[in-house]
Amino acid sequence: MDTTKVAVDAMGGDNAPAAIVEGCVDAVKEREDIKVFLVGKPDKINAELTKYEFPKEQIEVVEATEEIEMAEPPVNAIKKKKDSSMVVGMKLVHDKKADAFVTAGNSGAVLVGGQTVVGRIRGIKRAPFAPLIPTKTGVSLLLDCGANVDARPDQLVQFARLGALYMEKVVGVENPRVGIVNIGAEEEKGNALVKETFPMLKECNDINFIGSVESRDIPEGVCDVIVCEAFVGNVILKLYEGLASTLISVIKDGLMSTAKSKIGALLAKPALKKTLKSFDASEYGGAPLLGLEGLVVKTHGSATNKEVKNSIIQCSLFKEQDITGKVRESIV
Amino acid sequence: MDTTKVAVDAMGGDNAPAAIVEGCVDAVKEREDIKVFLVGKPDKINAELTKYEFPKEQIEVVEATEEIEMAEPPVNAIKKKKDSSMVVGMKLVHDKKADAFVTAGNSGAVLVGGQTVVGRIRGIKRAPFAPLIPTKTGVSLLLDCGANVDARPDQLVQFARLGALYMEKVVGVENPRVGIVNIGAEEEKGNALVKETFPMLKECNDINFIGSVESRDIPEGVCDVIVCEAFVGNVILKLYEGLASTLISVIKDGLMSTAKSKIGALLAKPALKKTLKSFDASEYGGAPLLGLEGLVVKTHGSATNKEVKNSIIQCSLFKEQDITGKVRESIV
Repeated sequence: MDTTKVAVDAMGGDNAPAAIVEGCVDAVKEREDIKVFLVGKPDKINAELTKYEFPKEQIEVVEATEEIEMAEPPVNAIKKKKDSSMVVGMKLVHDKKADAFVTAGNSGAVLVGGQTVVGRIRGIKRAPFAPLIPTKTGVSLLLDCGANVDARPDQLVQFARLGALYMEKVVGVENPRVGIVNIGAEEEKGNALVKETFPMLKECNDINFIGSVESRDIPEGVCDVIVCEAFVGNVILKLYEGLASTLISVIKDGLMSTAKSKIGALLAKPALKKTLKSFDASEYGGAPLLGLEGLVVKTHGSATNKEVKNSIIQCSLFKEQDITGKVRESIV
Repeated sequence: MDTTKVAVDAMGGDNAPAAIVEGCVDAVKEREDIKVFLVGKPDKINAELTKYEFPKEQIEVVEATEEIEMAEPPVNAIKKKKDSSMVVGMKLVHDKKADAFVTAGNSGAVLVGGQTVVGRIRGIKRAPFAPLIPTKTGVSLLLDCGANVDARPDQLVQFARLGALYMEKVVGVENPRVGIVNIGAEEEKGNALVKETFPMLKECNDINFIGSVESRDIPEGVCDVIVCEAFVGNVILKLYEGLASTLISVIKDGLMSTAKSKIGALLAKPALKKTLKSFDASEYGGAPLLGLEGLVVKTHGSATNKEVKNSIIQCSLFKEQDITGKVRESIV
């Protein structure tokens, strides 16, 4: 049996360390081929661990005395806090002691640390951050949503190939459809970047490029891998989150506005909850930072034990499928 | 009494000519200071007009023998179909026979025709297309959503000032808050375009610039005028439409999924409908194309008589406030 070793940031996120530790326990109880390194302050971690029964040999506590705060400027944080749970955890991946690192901590620090501490695969120009977004029919991978904007066409082509590999091998979508975000369906449409990238994507025989995708069609699930430059990716990702939460709150207000509608809401609640849950990408685990010498996964800051568990299990598929090896062979 | 003269494209849109003509009749019945030129095929227009009673002197039929189809390539359509309802209507504005032109027709043709037939105010570098989008607290103006991508910083600054003027004088928002779309709140964040534009906007004393706005916060209504380059504007506008419609359909499916929830849905329907209606920008009229020698308003392709009426009435405010004159004086 090949064990997947996952370093987990015990101190990052709103629910740390309780929900993080619980998620790790859940993961090793479900999968005997996973070993977790819980990185952070040992007394805090152990206080949580004593609450559970689990196979002791599958969880090891690794000390890190510092913590990176959620609002801390990322570049400085990674540079200065060498003994933070994030840097120590990422160093385990860099040193090949762990296959992957999972954190609910400071997003900016994850992006900086991924590139500088874990390091990119040789030949990868930029490591894209690739969250899954919910659609009517499942999920799509949206990349790049990282911090480095103004990408070049050859970088977008790498994103497309990294994303297709991830969706096929880790998420399990056969022959994933790859689209480029554009403002019209025709090949001659778009800004300078899209116009230059489009013919390059068309020439890639190793991906299933379906052409332009308009943002209007993304929620319907028209393609599996959505390629764009990071400024546009961030705009899409954050508008997705913001608009969904505003609309749901507007609808809740509507349901609570009259006595009759309140009764209606009570009756409809279980069915509604179930449907809205299908529109929640966190079921699939966290968002990967791709193209690195190992996997880095960022879960939501508010990640629950379930999301942490799913993110850890997702790492074992990444390892089994040897995504890093495949990237080295085929993409670079 | 100063009459506002509005040319209306009788042939454009999914519900033409019936809903268009009805909207014109509604407008002149409500406002005696509006005169409408209904542009298109006289027999078709008159067949509709005979259905209504209205002050005859307020509606005049202007003949145009051609029509621009919804899917027709816009540049060619405007160039070749000189006797189309769109070109003839826009020409009335260019020749100062009308103050404004309202159409539910081919969007691309509206953008091309606005710039080439009506013409930009001298000094305006690009005429931005500026739809209103619904928010939790009202509406925000999003510009540019036009077809010309890769804008320059000085163009974005003009968009900001045109948008602020429109929101204040036509929509009636006092001291409208102007924000630039960005991927973080800090001034040093953003792509090259945003970084260059930000300090220029800060120096504009005639607008209430509040800094960066993240797409996540747009639906909450954090600012009144949202400035961005047209590629990003189109992505936001279309994702807004697509995600709202997908989410509402997902919620409907949820409400219809069990017998209990169906009863609940029936009870909640009137309240829910009312709330969702508040999240509908078409109540405010159509989307203006700004910076032209006269106003051009594009309504939805599926515009109802009510939206057409609101769009016509919106033109009279534009005229009353002499927006074109104010742009000439202050912006250029």
